[in-house]
Amino acid sequence: MKICIIGSAGHTNYVLDGVRRDKDSKIVGIAAGIQGEGIDKLTEQIGELEEKPAVFDDYREMLEQLQPDVVAVASHFYQQASITLEVLKRGINVFVEKPVATNLSELASVKRFYQQSNLHLAAMFGIRYKPCFMTAWKLVQQGAVGKVRLMNAQKSYKLGSRPEFYKKRETYGGTIPWVGSHAVDWLHWFSGERFETVYAAHSNQYNQGHGELEISALLHFRLTNGAMGSVNIDYLRPDTAGSHGDDRIRVAGTEGVIEVCDERVFLINSKKKGVQEVSLENSEGIFLDFLSQVRGKGKCLVSAEDSFYITEVCLKARVAADENRIVML
Amino acid sequence: MKICIIGSAGHTNYVLDGVRRDKDSKIVGIAAGIQGEGIDKLTEQIGELEEKPAVFDDYREMLEQLQPDVVAVASHFYQQASITLEVLKRGINVFVEKPVATNLSELASVKRFYQQSNLHLAAMFGIRYKPCFMTAWKLVQQGAVGKVRLMNAQKSYKLGSRPEFYKKRETYGGTIPWVGSHAVDWLHWFSGERFETVYAAHSNQYNQGHGELEISALLHFRLTNGAMGSVNIDYLRPDTAGSHGDDRIRVAGTEGVIEVCDERVFLINSKKKGVQEVSLENSEGIFLDFLSQVRGKGKCLVSAEDSFYITEVCLKARVAADENRIVML
Repeated sequence: MKICIIGSAGHTNYVLDGVRRDKDSKIVGIAAGIQGEGIDKLTEQIGELEEKPAVFDDYREMLEQLQPDVVAVASHFYQQASITLEVLKRGINVFVEKPVATNLSELASVKRFYQQSNLHLAAMFGIRYKPCFMTAWKLVQQGAVGKVRLMNAQKSYKLGSRPEFYKKRETYGGTIPWVGSHAVDWLHWFSGERFETVYAAHSNQYNQGHGELEISALLHFRLTNGAMGSVNIDYLRPDTAGSHGDDRIRVAGTEGVIEVCDERVFLINSKKKGVQEVSLENSEGIFLDFLSQVRGKGKCLVSAEDSFYITEVCLKARVAADENRIVML
Repeated sequence: MKICIIGSAGHTNYVLDGVRRDKDSKIVGIAAGIQGEGIDKLTEQIGELEEKPAVFDDYREMLEQLQPDVVAVASHFYQQASITLEVLKRGINVFVEKPVATNLSELASVKRFYQQSNLHLAAMFGIRYKPCFMTAWKLVQQGAVGKVRLMNAQKSYKLGSRPEFYKKRETYGGTIPWVGSHAVDWLHWFSGERFETVYAAHSNQYNQGHGELEISALLHFRLTNGAMGSVNIDYLRPDTAGSHGDDRIRVAGTEGVIEVCDERVFLINSKKKGVQEVSLENSEGIFLDFLSQVRGKGKCLVSAEDSFYITEVCLKARVAADENRIVML
């Protein structure tokens, strides 16, 4: 299986990690997604590989010459949709950074083109596969907390110093789609419910010279069957914190409460007295799951439908925050 | 200082705890707030006192006969406002269960009457005085997290089997005012910001035969200066949990993040690497602070203004949830 990577701004490590554990796949080429996009991070990563992929100046040329089976797209976020379209048009499966697009019209184009194809597309909702999230999700699917009623999800990152394209809405897309989409995905994934309405707020105040980048955001969702969920997002995690991110979810249901925090899983239900810490299941990670579906060997846990749906919901949540209004979903 | 207690549905324990540690105050009388209100919980509590207070059938008669300095009001929630008015009209200081009223017109009456008096009134926002909350609050006031940007507060209770008056909105007032008001209070108290808008949802689905009682609720606030905050409320805490409630707050600011969880306080800021658990300060509790102000010896941390304001915000949040709309505050 021949794999190419376009861009170096997103989570290309998912691809590297997968390929390292998969004898039958190989990264054959890499290229920037747009002129001027530095791909140092990527060349550094592939430096560790035994067989070095070819490096192209123009990703279209790479696609034509190498005819890969799979392309990972991880360029500057506002380029995701147009690059994805180019890849799909050539009949190639796409593993694309979330959000799939930074505006609704481009999302619609990608979706339309995808639906006419027989290809696989998945957004990089790789946090689903972290042992803590996967373990908690499986427990919820097995009924460990009964019917899901109330969810609270968190994304908290260190800000550090972000590249220039993060500083403009036009090139960055916003913190709700970029950081928040993971957590929005969890709400849908854990509960199995669909979103009915979203209300939101975000703020770029005190963002330490990061232009339009929103440093804090808060989302409120009504979901089907009377379920509800919040997502709080920030870049306020101090540099002194022990890790880059502080991802969490709390899911309260009719039969119990489960939480992911500090990469651990905690459950309270009728089965045992007090809080039980659950031992974690390993997972193969998102990229191998993606390749399985491409090989016709299974269904990837992240579907194209979910990838589009969560992107759409995040873009509408951004509207809710921008315009201070409830948006129907 | 002569104290009377009216009703047995609320947190009369605040009063008992305070009086036990204050030689110069004494509970002289107790009475139900309305006909048919059982006051067994209260008579049990006062059974532990050395000098037994008189028990009255009619609280008005008690007020006339005993002429107390302070009355604690803790009857069925829909009676709070009218009883409070009766007490204020007799020139007596009021320590009243939150919310101060279960509808806006009664709240306005109490407020109007209070403003014409020289009395002290405070709602039972006693959780402020828990060592964990008090310690975290003081740290935030000292600038431990810089400017407050994003807050997430939680109230989670065991449902158990609630009295009949909880099962009707008319007599209960709703879960947002009854349970949520504490957490709404924390958002204002910690940040010093005022609420600008509220959006909310609540649901009585799966409430185990509790009629109209909402078992889950979720609030979204925009506050002044671009701050924002959520409150999630539920009665979904399993019976097997180690405590009745799971109160939490997370406050993320420009210089750090502080959290109250499991009655403990955790701080991350530039002062130290990693999460530091903060040692807790003791506090005298809300009722002694209330008595201090009545005695002219200080200002109670819970002001009448805050008591009214938080009640108003909660009643408007209830409207937001009922009518699925943003309410301006």
